[in-house]
Amino acid sequence: MQLGMIGLGRMGANLVRRLVKDGHRCVVYDVDPAAAKKITGRGIRGASSIEELVGKLSAPRAVWVMVPAGVTGETVDQLAACLAAGDIIIDGGNSYYRDDVLRAKALKAKGIHYVDCGTSGGVFGLDRGYCLMIGGEAQTVKHLDPIFKSIAPGVDAAPRTPGRKGAPAAAEHGYLHCGPSGAGHFVKMVHNGIEYGLMAAYAEGLNILHGANAGKQGRAADAETAPLRDAAFYQYDLDLGQIAEVWRRGSVIGSWLLDLTAASLASDPALKQYSGRVSDSGEGRWTIAAAVDESVPAPVLSAALFERFSSRGEADFADRVLSAMRKQFGGHDEKRKATK
Amino acid sequence: MQLGMIGLGRMGANLVRRLVKDGHRCVVYDVDPAAAKKITGRGIRGASSIEELVGKLSAPRAVWVMVPAGVTGETVDQLAACLAAGDIIIDGGNSYYRDDVLRAKALKAKGIHYVDCGTSGGVFGLDRGYCLMIGGEAQTVKHLDPIFKSIAPGVDAAPRTPGRKGAPAAAEHGYLHCGPSGAGHFVKMVHNGIEYGLMAAYAEGLNILHGANAGKQGRAADAETAPLRDAAFYQYDLDLGQIAEVWRRGSVIGSWLLDLTAASLASDPALKQYSGRVSDSGEGRWTIAAAVDESVPAPVLSAALFERFSSRGEADFADRVLSAMRKQFGGHDEKRKATK
Amino acid sequence: MQLGMIGLGRMGANLVRRLVKDGHRCVVYDVDPAAAKKITGRGIRGASSIEELVGKLSAPRAVWVMVPAGVTGETVDQLAACLAAGDIIIDGGNSYYRDDVLRAKALKAKGIHYVDCGTSGGVFGLDRGYCLMIGGEAQTVKHLDPIFKSIAPGVDAAPRTPGRKGAPAAAEHGYLHCGPSGAGHFVKMVHNGIEYGLMAAYAEGLNILHGANAGKQGRAADAETAPLRDAAFYQYDLDLGQIAEVWRRGSVIGSWLLDLTAASLASDPALKQYSGRVSDSGEGRWTIAAAVDESVPAPVLSAALFERFSSRGEADFADRVLSAMRKQFGGHDEKRKATK
Amino acid sequence: MQLGMIGLGRMGANLVRRLVKDGHRCVVYDVDPAAAKKITGRGIRGASSIEELVGKLSAPRAVWVMVPAGVTGETVDQLAACLAAGDIIIDGGNSYYRDDVLRAKALKAKGIHYVDCGTSGGVFGLDRGYCLMIGGEAQTVKHLDPIFKSIAPGVDAAPRTPGRKGAPAAAEHGYLHCGPSGAGHFVKMVHNGIEYGLMAAYAEGLNILHGANAGKQGRAADAETAPLRDAAFYQYDLDLGQIAEVWRRGSVIGSWLLDLTAASLASDPALKQYSGRVSDSGEGRWTIAAAVDESVPAPVLSAALFERFSSRGEADFADRVLSAMRKQFGGHDEKRKATK
Repeated sequence: MQLGMIGLGRMGANLVRRLVKDGHRCVVYDVDPAAAKKITGRGIRGASSIEELVGKLSAPRAVWVMVPAGVTGETVDQLAACLAAGDIIIDGGNSYYRDDVLRAKALKAKGIHYVDCGTSGGVFGLDRGYCLMIGGEAQTVKHLDPIFKSIAPGVDAAPRTPGRKGAPAAAEHGYLHCGPSGAGHFVKMVHNGIEYGLMAAYAEGLNILHGANAGKQGRAADAETAPLRDAAFYQYDLDLGQIAEVWRRGSVIGSWLLDLTAASLASDPALKQYSGRVSDSGEGRWTIAAAVDESVPAPVLSAALFERFSSRGEADFADRVLSAMRKQFGGHDEKRKATK
Repeated sequence: MQLGMIGLGRMGANLVRRLVKDGHRCVVYDVDPAAAKKITGRGIRGASSIEELVGKLSAPRAVWVMVPAGVTGETVDQLAACLAAGDIIIDGGNSYYRDDVLRAKALKAKGIHYVDCGTSGGVFGLDRGYCLMIGGEAQTVKHLDPIFKSIAPGVDAAPRTPGRKGAPAAAEHGYLHCGPSGAGHFVKMVHNGIEYGLMAAYAEGLNILHGANAGKQGRAADAETAPLRDAAFYQYDLDLGQIAEVWRRGSVIGSWLLDLTAASLASDPALKQYSGRVSDSGEGRWTIAAAVDESVPAPVLSAALFERFSSRGEADFADRVLSAMRKQFGGHDEKRKATK
Repeated sequence: MQLGMIGLGRMGANLVRRLVKDGHRCVVYDVDPAAAKKITGRGIRGASSIEELVGKLSAPRAVWVMVPAGVTGETVDQLAACLAAGDIIIDGGNSYYRDDVLRAKALKAKGIHYVDCGTSGGVFGLDRGYCLMIGGEAQTVKHLDPIFKSIAPGVDAAPRTPGRKGAPAAAEHGYLHCGPSGAGHFVKMVHNGIEYGLMAAYAEGLNILHGANAGKQGRAADAETAPLRDAAFYQYDLDLGQIAEVWRRGSVIGSWLLDLTAASLASDPALKQYSGRVSDSGEGRWTIAAAVDESVPAPVLSAALFERFSSRGEADFADRVLSAMRKQFGGHDEKRKATK
Repeated sequence: MQLGMIGLGRMGANLVRRLVKDGHRCVVYDVDPAAAKKITGRGIRGASSIEELVGKLSAPRAVWVMVPAGVTGETVDQLAACLAAGDIIIDGGNSYYRDDVLRAKALKAKGIHYVDCGTSGGVFGLDRGYCLMIGGEAQTVKHLDPIFKSIAPGVDAAPRTPGRKGAPAAAEHGYLHCGPSGAGHFVKMVHNGIEYGLMAAYAEGLNILHGANAGKQGRAADAETAPLRDAAFYQYDLDLGQIAEVWRRGSVIGSWLLDLTAASLASDPALKQYSGRVSDSGEGRWTIAAAVDESVPAPVLSAALFERFSSRGEADFADRVLSAMRKQFGGHDEKRKATK
């Protein structure tokens, strides 16, 4: 079928490529005309404005918006102004699910259907396909089924889950209608919250392995430093790249994130190209807010989020408060950073 | 080659099965004679005592001990008493790595070689193969290479990591000589620590999805209950089994643990067969102890461990302290458990 | 000066008592006529409705609202409908600071001044005085200074902080104009967030002391239970009441919360009257939401909050997920609750 | 009575001063002869060696050892070599309680009594008195009662706990015989673990208040930065010094640590003299190890400890792992530190 695509960054462009490979036709637009030009070709027509893009689609139109979260609102507004009753907007970005609920309601008044579609897959999605978590009216989602099916990885991407029978469900293709408006991005939000937790689990574990030679380094024996009692048991120089690799086969902790970690360590064993300032991009935070609202304990997911904040120096003031207290009650001077 | 196996529980028996399938010959013993009887056959000879087992092996002997952590020490002692200089003991159980260091040292005095081998794979290991994390002297480990190779999953168990070239390393077969005595169980220990963190990340995330309909349940509006301000945004009844399934393909959080979770939810969507008392078995604890010794922050892995303790009621006294304080300063009576 | 008080629960009634003791005159109202009747007397006149209360005050009127958070909004609305330009509303309850911002703005349009006043002190406030954290326009807050001064504990409640000189600041009396609308409740919110953290620190520590005899209890030696390696070092039967008491003098961790804990343990050493279901009431949650919004790490305050959720069984589903995974990969059956 | 004191640092010297003020006589020694010289005078005799110190005491001798944890073992050994059966050694330092158990046992063979005495009070102890947590044989501890009573703060240091009657217990004077050998340092260990938790609660809360103006700072709107949705609600410039001060009177979170924090903020409002590298000194770590051994959840105390590790850069490798994963799956380049 026919689909408009607004936003031709890495994600949007690759979605279009997967769609045309499966026989769909796309009309595409990006604020950067070069992006559209670059991708135009067999099955893909460019447009130099949202109006033009809408004009090149036949009703009922379906337009996928794949732009940074910060500009999704205005883009949807511009697009909606050009559409007619019966048309469909799909937001495939990382929007906050509450915005979906509000947008869907506002657009419904104009007869425009709104679908939120959490899209996971990253730079590998072009080949692997994208995992799609979809929210919106059942009928609209059903209408878009061919689109979702082409973007999703397909049944063969994983062995069948024991206990599942009959024709594969949509989830087994890699896409799922999760519920009404917002449900797609809600599930995607928690997906990313889990992602933070998984990543932190590997990172902490590797850091412990990395410190397995702590007994080899003399630790200062002053009053400001806790001594290492059992230095003899921390004498291992471990090869983290080989360890990440060995875990990829047969172990309980095998995963795609581990595969990626093994790849990083294979090419840069000490990860010297990174400084350790870790970004976060909204979903992890909203996940914690949802947990708090729902009264659901999330100590692991929140610790993972806070670890990222700390990596960017956001604990500094709190740490200075701690040093100030120690100075007050114990006369402890802060220990300067050792020159290594 | 030839291997003795002591301990024919699920793990030990399956190791033997994988070995004979690959042409090795095994002599086996278990405290329960029925266990040995059950498995005896093509390439597998039974023994009714450790002495007999040792007697049926030709020097230099290699004996794999696969018994519960609590009895490993005494089993190794008994075995060592029957062995001669040049023989090898492999401890494949979940021993504390410090015990390995001490045992290896003690046995070295007798000329017996000791190898610690962390073994991951669970009930699926027979088919998938086992991930092996090995510690000990290089020469001894090298001598046992054919054994490890047969037990490990093999190169085909995962696609090759980008950047790796040439003949596959042992790690790519699924086994790794990590370092000197204890290194194998050290790596396995952290492996399990990571496992706890990964499991908790999924569990917390699924719990947040499970609570996505919190707005549908009236929440008491008394002074002891925080009100849910945005009930309208918590109206989703999500199908967790389908969600776990959809994440298996194309998403960033795909993993073997997710595969297992999807299987559980497929057969028991509300997980009614479980009460939520979660056991832990040593490695997760030792991982935290190692982190503390090394001065490595492990907020996620420790939170995952403590969550398990709490699931077994171990926070009860602390919680009563909190209720007592609230009663004191605010006159708050404890809110009884609502009858559902 | 003259003040109206709406809400005569424990807090409201005690505020009135402190005010009249200091020579102020109050007009009081409560939805329960008995509450007003009970307190009416020297310097205190009752009113049977908000209208009547307003009618008995002379302009510019100042009315303090001290009702449960859930009904603050409607109470303020009713009150505002009876007031005139130049009058003042003080919200002394546990409102969300964002509601203050919105209410202040709405009331300003009518010329009514709005002050938010976080009030800490609990059941001891009548004697100790209340700590007041105030938000609103500087001039209005200044106008109410005599009221705040009478309610606050006064300079003598604590020794002077080293480094402070000259006439005591308002903060040294126990009240503070923190900033514009909402600032008072923002500071009170974080105050409660800290309170949760402090309480949890004591509770966890006491629980660890409580478990100091863990080595005396035989721990099951099965595969589902981590063995206690050093039972000989966990043989202490500690008297927690005496320990809380000894910490009250000279130690670094002395505090009012510790005083209360010592009192609880003195009368009920095993805290048998509590079941350990710990409530939370909004501010602790909002504190975490603020931390997340601000990118400030709050691992301790969030862990304290989540501990309360868990105490009420909110981790159950997550824990069942963990048990399900363990069953899947290891064939582990869930261990039933031991009958003690 | 008569007491020997080995170690005349801040703590040891002040203990001696409190003792002689109360009429006791001391013989003192320090590795630095100047330290002994400085304090010698009315009731205090110096010694130039441990032998000399022992020689100047009359049997049964009691010698208090107050030296850094790292040298306690050798000091006790030297001292014991000079003592006779019936003499007493008191270790007042920050020893690991397990060392006490072992030392007490070894010394008992020689007839020497060993008492462990956790000592809290810091630089203020000279005036306030020290909180003493004592382990050892009942009779020995009773014999030393006059010493402990003089060092402890005394009954007047805090109002009596409601419910306590009759003659004040030792705990109400500020010292407590907690149990057999090691019990004193066990309780002191947990005391410090709690201290870390309390400190972190204040520090995190103050950091959240510190960030209350986050909405004033433009936050980058790129894909690597989570946007602040509600900037309008983060516009407060709060005076942390005044806030810490106001909490000192009447609030639920008043404490000695808060008093110290208020003092720090009064003299250095932005805490500019600190860099935020926070030391830790053993007890906090041992507390977590004890919690793990006992199966007691300690999410708050462990988070407080890990926060300190992170303040010293110990999470760096883990953070680099996270950045590496993000680069792999999302092509995200690490965001450099902004120049402020």
